[in-house]
Amino acid sequence: MSEYISSATNKLIKEIASLHQRKYRDRLGMFLAEGVRLVEECANAAWPVKMCIYTEEAAARERAKAVIERLSAADCRMVVVSEDIYNKISDTEQPQGIMVVLKKRQFSIEQLLLRQDKLPLLVVLDGVQDPGNAGTIIRTADAAGCTGVIALKGSADIYAGKTVRATMGSLFHLPVMEGLSSAELIQSLKQADIKLLATCLQQSDVYYHANFNHPVAIVLGNEGQGISPEFISAADACLNIPLVGHAESLNVAVAAGVILYEAVRQRATL
Amino acid sequence: MSEYISSATNKLIKEIASLHQRKYRDRLGMFLAEGVRLVEECANAAWPVKMCIYTEEAAARERAKAVIERLSAADCRMVVVSEDIYNKISDTEQPQGIMVVLKKRQFSIEQLLLRQDKLPLLVVLDGVQDPGNAGTIIRTADAAGCTGVIALKGSADIYAGKTVRATMGSLFHLPVMEGLSSAELIQSLKQADIKLLATCLQQSDVYYHANFNHPVAIVLGNEGQGISPEFISAADACLNIPLVGHAESLNVAVAAGVILYEAVRQRATL
Repeated sequence: MSEYISSATNKLIKEIASLHQRKYRDRLGMFLAEGVRLVEECANAAWPVKMCIYTEEAAARERAKAVIERLSAADCRMVVVSEDIYNKISDTEQPQGIMVVLKKRQFSIEQLLLRQDKLPLLVVLDGVQDPGNAGTIIRTADAAGCTGVIALKGSADIYAGKTVRATMGSLFHLPVMEGLSSAELIQSLKQADIKLLATCLQQSDVYYHANFNHPVAIVLGNEGQGISPEFISAADACLNIPLVGHAESLNVAVAAGVILYEAVRQRATL
Repeated sequence: MSEYISSATNKLIKEIASLHQRKYRDRLGMFLAEGVRLVEECANAAWPVKMCIYTEEAAARERAKAVIERLSAADCRMVVVSEDIYNKISDTEQPQGIMVVLKKRQFSIEQLLLRQDKLPLLVVLDGVQDPGNAGTIIRTADAAGCTGVIALKGSADIYAGKTVRATMGSLFHLPVMEGLSSAELIQSLKQADIKLLATCLQQSDVYYHANFNHPVAIVLGNEGQGISPEFISAADACLNIPLVGHAESLNVAVAAGVILYEAVRQRATL
Protein backbone atom coordinates (compact mmCIF):
# COMPACT_ATOMS: atom_id res chain seq x y z
CA MET A 1 0.00 0.00 0.00
CA SER A 2 1.24 3.45 -0.93
CA GLU A 3 0.38 6.68 0.81
CA TYR A 4 -0.10 9.81 -1.26
CA ILE A 5 1.14 13.13 0.06
CA SER A 6 0.08 16.25 -1.82
CA SER A 7 1.24 19.03 0.50
CA ALA A 8 4.79 20.33 0.67
CA THR A 9 4.13 21.47 4.25
CA ASN A 10 3.35 17.92 5.35
CA LYS A 11 5.38 17.02 8.43
CA LEU A 12 6.89 13.90 6.88
CA ILE A 13 7.98 15.79 3.77
CA LYS A 14 9.66 18.41 5.93
CA GLU A 15 11.43 15.71 7.93
CA ILE A 16 12.71 14.07 4.76
CA ALA A 17 13.95 17.42 3.43
CA SER A 18 15.74 18.03 6.74
CA LEU A 19 17.95 14.99 6.03
CA HIS A 20 19.93 17.10 3.56
CA GLN A 21 21.48 18.68 6.64
CA ARG A 22 24.09 16.81 8.63
CA LYS A 23 22.68 17.88 11.98
CA TYR A 24 19.35 16.17 11.27
CA ARG A 25 21.05 13.10 9.80
CA ASP A 26 23.08 12.83 13.01
CA ARG A 27 20.06 13.45 15.23
CA LEU A 28 17.74 10.99 13.46
CA GLY A 29 20.39 8.42 12.52
CA MET A 30 19.02 8.41 8.98
CA PHE A 31 20.06 9.51 5.51
CA LEU A 32 18.84 9.66 1.92
CA ALA A 33 19.86 7.83 -1.22
CA GLU A 34 18.50 9.26 -4.47
CA GLY A 35 18.21 7.92 -7.97
CA VAL A 36 17.14 4.57 -9.36
CA ARG A 37 20.61 3.05 -9.41
CA LEU A 38 21.36 3.78 -5.76
CA VAL A 39 17.93 2.52 -4.71
CA GLU A 40 18.60 -0.71 -6.63
CA GLU A 41 22.00 -1.05 -4.97
CA CYS A 42 20.63 -0.73 -1.48
CA ALA A 43 17.81 -3.15 -2.26
CA ASN A 44 20.41 -5.63 -3.57
CA ALA A 45 22.53 -5.17 -0.48
CA ALA A 46 19.53 -5.76 1.80
CA TRP A 47 20.23 -2.47 3.55
CA PRO A 48 17.33 -1.63 5.88
CA VAL A 49 15.06 0.77 3.95
CA LYS A 50 12.80 2.90 6.16
CA MET A 51 10.80 4.47 3.39
CA CYS A 52 10.70 4.93 -0.37
CA ILE A 53 9.48 8.23 -1.85
CA TYR A 54 8.66 8.32 -5.54
CA THR A 55 6.56 10.02 -8.20
CA GLU A 56 3.98 8.39 -10.44
CA GLU A 57 6.08 9.49 -13.41
CA ALA A 58 9.07 7.54 -12.06
CA ALA A 59 6.90 4.49 -11.32
CA ALA A 60 5.91 4.43 -15.00
CA ARG A 61 9.53 3.80 -16.02
CA GLU A 62 10.69 0.20 -16.14
CA ARG A 63 13.75 0.18 -13.86
CA ALA A 64 12.16 2.34 -11.17
CA LYS A 65 8.94 0.31 -11.36
CA ALA A 66 10.83 -2.94 -10.76
CA VAL A 67 12.63 -1.68 -7.67
CA ILE A 68 9.44 -0.03 -6.32
CA GLU A 69 7.71 -3.42 -6.58
CA ARG A 70 10.60 -5.14 -4.81
CA LEU A 71 10.59 -2.68 -1.93
CA SER A 72 6.83 -2.73 -1.66
CA ALA A 73 6.83 -6.54 -1.52
CA ALA A 74 9.41 -6.29 1.28
CA ASP A 75 6.93 -4.24 3.35
CA CYS A 76 8.81 -0.98 2.98
CA ARG A 77 6.75 2.16 3.64
CA MET A 78 5.93 3.61 0.19
CA VAL A 79 5.13 7.31 -0.26
CA VAL A 80 3.96 8.80 -3.54
CA VAL A 81 4.44 12.53 -4.10
CA SER A 82 3.91 14.94 -7.00
CA GLU A 83 6.88 15.91 -9.18
CA ASP A 84 6.70 19.39 -7.65
CA ILE A 85 7.12 18.08 -4.14
CA TYR A 86 9.75 15.57 -5.22
CA ASN A 87 11.84 18.28 -6.86
CA LYS A 88 11.60 20.33 -3.68
CA ILE A 89 13.03 17.58 -1.52
CA SER A 90 15.55 16.41 -4.11
CA ASP A 91 19.19 17.40 -3.88
CA THR A 92 20.19 16.34 -7.41
CA GLU A 93 20.44 18.38 -10.59
CA GLN A 94 18.33 15.97 -12.59
CA PRO A 95 15.88 14.39 -10.13
CA GLN A 96 14.87 10.86 -11.11
CA GLY A 97 11.74 10.80 -8.98
CA ILE A 98 12.82 8.08 -6.57
CA MET A 99 14.68 8.13 -3.26
CA VAL A 100 14.87 6.08 -0.11
CA VAL A 101 15.27 6.98 3.56
CA LEU A 102 17.83 4.68 5.14
CA LYS A 103 19.02 3.96 8.63
CA LYS A 104 22.72 4.48 9.22
CA ARG A 105 24.43 1.21 10.04
CA GLN A 106 26.58 1.16 13.14
CA PHE A 107 29.82 -0.78 13.10
CA SER A 108 32.15 -1.28 16.00
CA ILE A 109 35.86 -0.82 15.39
CA GLU A 110 36.31 -4.53 16.21
CA GLN A 111 33.97 -5.51 13.37
CA LEU A 112 36.18 -3.59 10.96
CA LEU A 113 39.56 -4.65 12.29
CA LEU A 114 39.18 -8.25 13.34
CA ARG A 115 38.35 -10.01 10.11
CA GLN A 116 39.08 -13.71 9.94
CA ASP A 117 38.02 -14.19 6.32
CA LYS A 118 40.26 -11.65 4.60
CA LEU A 119 43.67 -10.06 5.02
CA PRO A 120 42.68 -6.62 6.35
CA LEU A 121 43.05 -3.72 3.90
CA LEU A 122 41.57 -0.59 5.43
CA VAL A 123 41.23 2.98 4.27
CA VAL A 124 41.23 5.83 6.77
CA LEU A 125 39.92 9.28 5.85
CA ASP A 126 41.80 11.79 7.99
CA GLY A 127 40.08 15.08 7.18
CA VAL A 128 39.19 14.41 3.53
CA GLN A 129 36.83 17.34 3.02
CA ASP A 130 35.22 17.05 -0.37
CA PRO A 131 32.15 14.77 -0.39
CA GLY A 132 32.87 13.79 -4.01
CA ASN A 133 36.38 12.70 -3.05
CA ALA A 134 35.16 10.83 0.04
CA GLY A 135 32.53 9.00 -2.00
CA THR A 136 34.93 8.16 -4.82
CA ILE A 137 37.40 6.76 -2.25
CA ILE A 138 34.68 4.50 -0.80
CA ARG A 139 33.88 3.32 -4.36
CA THR A 140 37.56 2.68 -5.04
CA ALA A 141 38.03 0.88 -1.71
CA ASP A 142 35.13 -1.40 -2.60
CA ALA A 143 36.58 -2.08 -6.06
CA ALA A 144 39.96 -2.95 -4.54
CA GLY A 145 38.36 -5.39 -2.10
CA CYS A 146 39.07 -3.37 1.04
CA THR A 147 37.72 -4.75 4.30
CA GLY A 148 36.46 -1.35 5.47
CA VAL A 149 36.65 2.43 5.39
CA ILE A 150 36.98 4.59 8.49
CA ALA A 151 36.02 8.29 8.24
CA LEU A 152 37.59 10.03 11.22
CA LYS A 153 36.07 13.04 12.96
CA GLY A 154 36.63 16.11 10.78
CA SER A 155 36.17 14.28 7.46
CA ALA A 156 33.31 14.82 5.02
CA ASP A 157 30.03 13.26 6.13
CA ILE A 158 29.83 9.85 4.47
CA TYR A 159 26.02 10.15 4.56
CA ALA A 160 25.81 13.49 2.69
CA GLY A 161 23.92 13.26 -0.61
CA LYS A 162 27.00 14.02 -2.72
CA THR A 163 29.11 11.45 -0.89
CA VAL A 164 26.46 8.76 -1.16
CA ARG A 165 26.02 9.40 -4.90
CA ALA A 166 29.79 9.40 -5.54
CA THR A 167 30.08 5.97 -3.88
CA MET A 168 27.84 4.65 -6.71
CA GLY A 169 26.36 2.19 -4.22
CA SER A 170 29.63 1.04 -2.70
CA LEU A 171 28.54 2.55 0.62
CA PHE A 172 26.20 -0.46 0.81
CA HIS A 173 28.89 -3.00 -0.09
CA LEU A 174 31.55 -2.69 2.58
CA PRO A 175 31.64 -1.59 6.21
CA VAL A 176 32.09 2.18 6.46
CA MET A 177 32.46 3.67 9.90
CA GLU A 178 32.39 7.28 11.10
CA GLY A 179 33.09 9.37 14.14
CA LEU A 180 36.26 7.78 15.52
CA SER A 181 39.10 9.99 16.78
CA SER A 182 42.64 9.47 15.54
CA ALA A 183 43.85 8.48 19.02
CA GLU A 184 41.20 5.76 19.30
CA LEU A 185 42.04 4.43 15.88
CA ILE A 186 45.80 4.38 16.43
CA GLN A 187 45.36 2.40 19.64
CA SER A 188 42.93 -0.08 18.05
CA LEU A 189 45.21 -0.67 15.05
CA LYS A 190 48.16 -1.38 17.37
CA GLN A 191 46.10 -3.86 19.37
CA ALA A 192 44.91 -5.62 16.21
CA ASP A 193 48.46 -5.68 14.83
CA ILE A 194 47.47 -3.80 11.68
CA LYS A 195 50.23 -1.72 10.12
CA LEU A 196 49.53 1.98 9.74
CA LEU A 197 50.68 3.40 6.40
CA ALA A 198 50.43 7.18 6.09
CA THR A 199 50.53 8.92 2.72
CA CYS A 200 52.70 12.01 2.71
CA LEU A 201 54.93 14.01 0.44
CA GLN A 202 58.15 14.29 2.40
CA GLN A 203 60.51 11.92 4.18
CA SER A 204 58.80 8.84 2.98
CA ASP A 205 59.20 5.69 0.89
CA VAL A 206 57.93 5.26 -2.64
CA TYR A 207 54.61 3.42 -2.23
CA TYR A 208 55.51 0.48 -4.47
CA HIS A 209 58.46 -0.37 -2.25
CA ALA A 210 56.10 -0.94 0.69
CA ASN A 211 54.94 -4.43 1.54
CA PHE A 212 51.15 -4.77 1.41
CA ASN A 213 51.15 -8.47 2.23
CA HIS A 214 50.33 -7.70 5.86
CA PRO A 215 47.18 -6.39 7.46
CA VAL A 216 47.41 -2.67 6.61
CA ALA A 217 45.45 0.55 7.09
CA ILE A 218 46.18 3.32 4.60
CA VAL A 219 45.61 6.87 5.86
CA LEU A 220 44.60 9.58 3.37
CA GLY A 221 44.76 13.19 4.47
CA ASN A 222 43.06 16.49 3.87
CA GLU A 223 43.12 17.85 0.28
CA GLY A 224 45.14 20.91 1.25
CA GLN A 225 46.88 20.08 4.53
CA GLY A 226 47.57 16.38 4.15
CA ILE A 227 47.76 14.03 7.10
CA SER A 228 47.63 15.11 10.75
CA PRO A 229 50.90 15.06 12.68
CA GLU A 230 49.74 12.31 15.08
CA PHE A 231 49.47 9.88 12.17
CA ILE A 232 52.87 10.83 10.80
CA SER A 233 54.46 9.99 14.15
CA ALA A 234 52.34 6.88 14.79
CA ALA A 235 52.77 5.45 11.27
CA ASP A 236 54.71 2.26 10.65
CA ALA A 237 55.70 3.79 7.32
CA CYS A 238 55.08 6.98 5.37
CA LEU A 239 54.48 6.46 1.68
CA ASN A 240 54.68 8.86 -1.23
CA ILE A 241 53.55 8.63 -4.81
CA PRO A 242 56.37 9.98 -6.98
CA LEU A 243 55.47 13.13 -8.90
CA VAL A 244 57.35 12.63 -12.14
CA GLY A 245 56.06 15.72 -13.96
CA HIS A 246 55.28 19.22 -12.71
CA ALA A 247 52.05 18.60 -10.76
CA GLU A 248 52.40 19.44 -7.08
CA SER A 249 50.06 16.72 -5.90
CA LEU A 250 47.47 14.18 -6.95
CA ASN A 251 43.76 14.29 -6.29
CA VAL A 252 43.24 12.34 -3.05
CA ALA A 253 40.84 9.81 -4.64
CA VAL A 254 43.34 9.15 -7.43
CA ALA A 255 46.08 8.71 -4.81
CA ALA A 256 43.85 6.21 -2.98
CA GLY A 257 43.38 4.24 -6.22
CA VAL A 258 47.11 4.15 -6.98
CA ILE A 259 48.05 2.84 -3.54
CA LEU A 260 45.13 0.42 -3.09
CA TYR A 261 45.76 -1.15 -6.48
CA GLU A 262 49.42 -1.62 -5.66
CA ALA A 263 48.13 -3.64 -2.69
CA VAL A 264 45.84 -5.57 -5.04
CA ARG A 265 48.76 -6.25 -7.41
CA GLN A 266 51.09 -7.40 -4.65
CA ARG A 267 48.48 -9.62 -3.02
CA ALA A 268 47.49 -11.21 -6.35
CA THR A 269 51.03 -11.86 -7.56
CA LEU A 270 52.40 -13.14 -4.26
CA MET B 1 49.11 50.65 -16.74
CA SER B 2 45.72 49.32 -15.73
CA GLU B 3 42.40 50.18 -17.33
CA TYR B 4 39.34 50.55 -15.13
CA ILE B 5 35.99 49.28 -16.35
CA SER B 6 32.93 50.21 -14.32
CA SER B 7 30.09 49.10 -16.57
CA ALA B 8 28.82 45.53 -16.83
CA THR B 9 27.54 46.31 -20.32
CA ASN B 10 31.03 47.20 -21.54
CA LYS B 11 31.86 45.30 -24.75
CA LEU B 12 35.06 43.78 -23.36
CA ILE B 13 33.29 42.53 -20.22
CA LYS B 14 30.63 40.88 -22.35
CA GLU B 15 33.28 39.25 -24.51
CA ILE B 16 35.06 37.87 -21.46
CA ALA B 17 31.79 36.51 -20.04
CA SER B 18 31.08 34.84 -23.40
CA LEU B 19 34.18 32.67 -22.89
CA HIS B 20 32.21 30.56 -20.42
CA GLN B 21 30.52 29.10 -23.49
CA ARG B 22 32.36 26.60 -25.65
CA LYS B 23 31.14 28.11 -28.90
CA TYR B 24 32.83 31.43 -28.12
CA ARG B 25 35.98 29.74 -26.84
CA ASP B 26 36.16 27.84 -30.12
CA ARG B 27 35.40 30.93 -32.21
CA LEU B 28 37.88 33.21 -30.44
CA GLY B 29 40.54 30.58 -29.70
CA MET B 30 40.68 31.84 -26.11
CA PHE B 31 39.72 30.64 -22.65
CA LEU B 32 39.69 31.73 -19.01
CA ALA B 33 41.66 30.62 -15.98
CA GLU B 34 40.33 31.83 -12.63
CA GLY B 35 41.82 32.02 -9.18
CA VAL B 36 45.19 33.11 -7.88
CA ARG B 37 46.77 29.65 -8.04
CA LEU B 38 45.90 29.02 -11.67
CA VAL B 39 47.06 32.52 -12.62
CA GLU B 40 50.38 31.84 -10.88
CA GLU B 41 50.71 28.50 -12.65
CA CYS B 42 50.22 30.00 -16.08
CA ALA B 43 52.62 32.83 -15.29
CA ASN B 44 55.21 30.23 -14.17
CA ALA B 45 54.67 28.22 -17.33
CA ALA B 46 55.10 31.32 -19.51
CA TRP B 47 51.76 30.59 -21.15
CA PRO B 48 50.79 33.58 -23.34
CA VAL B 49 48.42 35.73 -21.24
CA LYS B 50 46.19 38.03 -23.30
CA MET B 51 44.69 39.89 -20.40
CA CYS B 52 44.38 39.88 -16.60
CA ILE B 53 41.10 40.96 -14.96
CA TYR B 54 41.15 41.66 -11.24
CA THR B 55 39.51 43.61 -8.44
CA GLU B 56 41.17 46.15 -6.15
CA GLU B 57 40.23 43.92 -3.23
CA ALA B 58 42.18 41.03 -4.76
CA ALA B 59 45.16 43.27 -5.52
CA ALA B 60 45.33 44.12 -1.80
CA ARG B 61 46.06 40.47 -0.95
CA GLU B 62 49.70 39.38 -1.01
CA ARG B 63 49.70 36.42 -3.42
CA ALA B 64 47.37 38.05 -5.96
CA LYS B 65 49.36 41.29 -5.73
CA ALA B 66 52.60 39.49 -6.53
CA VAL B 67 51.28 37.80 -9.63
CA ILE B 68 49.52 41.00 -10.79
CA GLU B 69 52.87 42.76 -10.60
CA ARG B 70 54.59 39.99 -12.56
CA LEU B 71 52.01 40.03 -15.34
CA SER B 72 52.00 43.82 -15.43
CA ALA B 73 55.80 43.89 -15.73
CA ALA B 74 55.48 41.42 -18.62
CA ASP B 75 53.31 43.93 -20.50
CA CYS B 76 50.11 41.98 -20.08
CA ARG B 77 46.92 43.99 -20.56
CA MET B 78 45.58 44.69 -17.04
CA VAL B 79 41.89 45.40 -16.42
CA VAL B 80 40.51 46.43 -13.04
CA VAL B 81 36.80 45.86 -12.35
CA SER B 82 34.49 46.24 -9.36
CA GLU B 83 33.66 43.18 -7.26
CA ASP B 84 30.11 43.35 -8.63
CA ILE B 85 31.31 43.07 -12.21
CA TYR B 86 33.89 40.43 -11.32
CA ASN B 87 31.29 38.23 -9.66
CA LYS B 88 29.12 38.57 -12.75
CA ILE B 89 31.82 37.26 -15.07
CA SER B 90 33.13 34.68 -12.62
CA ASP B 91 32.19 31.02 -12.93
CA THR B 92 33.40 29.92 -9.49
CA GLU B 93 31.50 29.53 -6.24
CA GLN B 94 33.95 31.61 -4.25
CA PRO B 95 35.37 34.17 -6.67
CA GLN B 96 38.93 35.19 -5.80
CA GLY B 97 38.84 38.40 -7.82
CA ILE B 98 41.49 37.45 -10.38
CA MET B 99 41.35 35.73 -13.74
CA VAL B 100 43.28 35.70 -16.98
CA VAL B 101 42.24 35.41 -20.61
CA LEU B 102 44.53 32.94 -22.36
CA LYS B 103 45.12 31.89 -25.93
CA LYS B 104 44.64 28.21 -26.63
CA ARG B 105 47.89 26.58 -27.64
CA GLN B 106 47.88 24.55 -30.83
CA PHE B 107 49.86 21.35 -30.99
CA SER B 108 50.31 19.13 -34.01
CA ILE B 109 49.92 15.40 -33.51
CA GLU B 110 53.60 15.05 -34.50
CA GLN B 111 54.65 17.29 -31.61
CA LEU B 112 52.86 14.97 -29.22
CA LEU B 113 53.92 11.66 -30.72
CA LEU B 114 57.48 12.14 -31.88
CA ARG B 115 59.35 12.89 -28.67
CA GLN B 116 63.07 12.24 -28.70
CA ASP B 117 63.67 13.14 -25.06
CA LYS B 118 61.23 10.79 -23.36
CA LEU B 119 59.67 7.37 -23.87
CA PRO B 120 56.16 8.35 -25.02
CA LEU B 121 53.38 7.83 -22.46
CA LEU B 122 50.17 9.33 -23.81
CA VAL B 123 46.64 9.55 -22.49
CA VAL B 124 43.70 9.59 -24.89
CA LEU B 125 40.26 10.81 -23.77
CA ASP B 126 37.70 8.97 -25.88
CA GLY B 127 34.42 10.60 -24.87
CA VAL B 128 35.23 11.36 -21.22
CA GLN B 129 32.27 13.65 -20.51
CA ASP B 130 32.67 15.13 -17.07
CA PRO B 131 34.90 18.24 -16.99
CA GLY B 132 36.04 17.38 -13.46
CA ASN B 133 37.15 13.94 -14.60
CA ALA B 134 38.86 15.31 -17.71
CA GLY B 135 40.73 17.90 -15.64
CA THR B 136 41.73 15.39 -12.96
CA ILE B 137 43.05 13.05 -15.67
CA ILE B 138 45.20 15.87 -17.10
CA ARG B 139 46.52 16.56 -13.57
CA THR B 140 47.25 12.86 -13.06
CA ALA B 141 48.91 12.55 -16.47
CA ASP B 142 51.18 15.47 -15.56
CA ALA B 143 52.03 13.88 -12.19
CA ALA B 144 52.89 10.58 -13.88
CA GLY B 145 55.21 12.32 -16.35
CA CYS B 146 53.08 11.70 -19.43
CA THR B 147 54.30 13.19 -22.69
CA GLY B 148 50.84 14.45 -23.65
CA VAL B 149 47.07 14.18 -23.45
CA ILE B 150 44.79 13.94 -26.48
CA ALA B 151 41.11 14.80 -26.03
CA LEU B 152 39.27 13.34 -29.01
CA LYS B 153 36.16 14.86 -30.56
CA GLY B 154 33.20 14.17 -28.28
CA SER B 155 35.16 14.52 -25.02
CA ALA B 156 34.66 17.28 -22.45
CA ASP B 157 36.12 20.64 -23.48
CA ILE B 158 39.59 20.83 -21.98
CA TYR B 159 39.20 24.63 -21.90
CA ALA B 160 35.95 24.71 -19.90
CA GLY B 161 36.28 26.47 -16.54
CA LYS B 162 35.66 23.32 -14.51
CA THR B 163 38.18 21.32 -16.52
CA VAL B 164 40.84 24.00 -16.25
CA ARG B 165 40.34 24.28 -12.48
CA ALA B 166 40.43 20.50 -11.98
CA THR B 167 43.79 20.33 -13.79
CA MET B 168 45.18 22.49 -10.93
CA GLY B 169 47.53 24.11 -13.44
CA SER B 170 48.67 20.90 -15.14
CA LEU B 171 47.00 22.11 -18.36
CA PHE B 172 49.96 24.51 -18.58
CA HIS B 173 52.57 21.82 -17.88
CA LEU B 174 52.21 19.26 -20.63
CA PRO B 175 50.97 19.28 -24.22
CA VAL B 176 47.20 18.78 -24.34
CA MET B 177 45.60 18.52 -27.76
CA GLU B 178 41.94 18.56 -28.78
CA GLY B 179 39.72 17.95 -31.79
CA LEU B 180 41.33 14.86 -33.35
CA SER B 181 39.12 12.02 -34.61
CA SER B 182 39.74 8.45 -33.52
CA ALA B 183 40.60 7.41 -37.11
CA GLU B 184 43.26 10.11 -37.38
CA LEU B 185 44.75 9.16 -34.04
CA ILE B 186 44.81 5.42 -34.74
CA GLN B 187 46.68 6.03 -38.01
CA SER B 188 49.17 8.44 -36.41
CA LEU B 189 49.92 6.04 -33.53
CA LYS B 190 50.58 3.22 -36.01
CA GLN B 191 52.96 5.39 -38.03
CA ALA B 192 54.82 6.49 -34.90
CA ASP B 193 54.98 2.88 -33.65
CA ILE B 194 53.21 3.73 -30.40
CA LYS B 195 51.23 0.86 -28.88
CA LEU B 196 47.55 1.49 -28.32
CA LEU B 197 46.27 0.20 -24.97
CA ALA B 198 42.52 0.34 -24.51
CA THR B 199 40.92 0.10 -21.07
CA CYS B 200 37.86 -2.12 -21.02
CA LEU B 201 35.98 -4.46 -18.75
CA GLN B 202 35.67 -7.60 -20.84
CA GLN B 203 38.00 -9.85 -22.80
CA SER B 204 41.11 -8.15 -21.66
CA ASP B 205 44.36 -8.57 -19.74
CA VAL B 206 44.91 -7.43 -16.19
CA TYR B 207 46.67 -4.07 -16.52
CA TYR B 208 49.72 -5.01 -14.44
CA HIS B 209 50.54 -7.85 -16.83
CA ALA B 210 50.92 -5.38 -19.68
CA ASN B 211 54.37 -4.13 -20.62
CA PHE B 212 54.64 -0.34 -20.35
CA ASN B 213 58.31 -0.23 -21.31
CA HIS B 214 57.40 0.72 -24.87
CA PRO B 215 55.96 3.89 -26.27
CA VAL B 216 52.28 3.57 -25.30
CA ALA B 217 49.02 5.49 -25.57
CA ILE B 218 46.35 4.62 -23.00
CA VAL B 219 42.76 5.16 -24.11
CA LEU B 220 40.14 6.03 -21.47
CA GLY B 221 36.48 5.87 -22.43
CA ASN B 222 33.18 7.48 -21.61
CA GLU B 223 31.96 7.25 -17.98
CA GLY B 224 28.88 5.22 -18.92
CA GLN B 225 29.62 3.63 -22.29
CA GLY B 226 33.34 2.99 -22.08
CA ILE B 227 35.59 2.97 -25.12
CA SER B 228 34.36 3.21 -28.71
CA PRO B 229 34.39 0.01 -30.78
CA GLU B 230 37.02 1.31 -33.22
CA PHE B 231 39.57 1.51 -30.41
CA ILE B 232 38.71 -1.96 -29.15
CA SER B 233 39.43 -3.40 -32.58
CA ALA B 234 42.49 -1.22 -33.27
CA ALA B 235 44.06 -1.75 -29.83
CA ASP B 236 47.32 -3.66 -29.43
CA ALA B 237 45.93 -4.80 -26.09
CA CYS B 238 42.81 -4.31 -24.00
CA LEU B 239 43.48 -3.84 -20.29
CA ASN B 240 41.20 -4.18 -17.30
CA ILE B 241 41.56 -3.20 -13.69
CA PRO B 242 40.34 -6.14 -11.58
CA LEU B 243 37.25 -5.37 -9.51
CA VAL B 244 37.92 -7.36 -6.38
CA GLY B 245 34.89 -6.21 -4.39
CA HIS B 246 31.33 -5.44 -5.46
CA ALA B 247 31.82 -2.14 -7.29
CA GLU B 248 30.84 -2.34 -10.95
CA SER B 249 33.46 0.10 -12.15
CA LEU B 250 36.00 2.68 -11.09
CA ASN B 251 35.81 6.41 -11.60
CA VAL B 252 37.62 7.09 -14.88
CA ALA B 253 40.16 9.47 -13.31
CA VAL B 254 40.98 6.88 -10.64
CA ALA B 255 41.36 4.24 -13.39
CA ALA B 256 43.74 6.59 -15.23
CA GLY B 257 45.83 6.96 -12.06
CA VAL B 258 46.01 3.22 -11.44
CA ILE B 259 47.20 2.44 -14.98
CA LEU B 260 49.54 5.42 -15.39
CA TYR B 261 51.26 4.68 -12.10
CA GLU B 262 51.76 1.06 -13.09
CA ALA B 263 53.62 2.50 -16.08
CA VAL B 264 55.62 4.74 -13.73
CA ARG B 265 56.44 1.75 -11.51
CA GLN B 266 57.52 -0.46 -14.39
CA ARG B 267 59.64 2.24 -16.01
CA ALA B 268 61.33 3.15 -12.71
CA THR B 269 62.07 -0.42 -11.64
CA LEU B 270 63.26 -1.65 -15.04
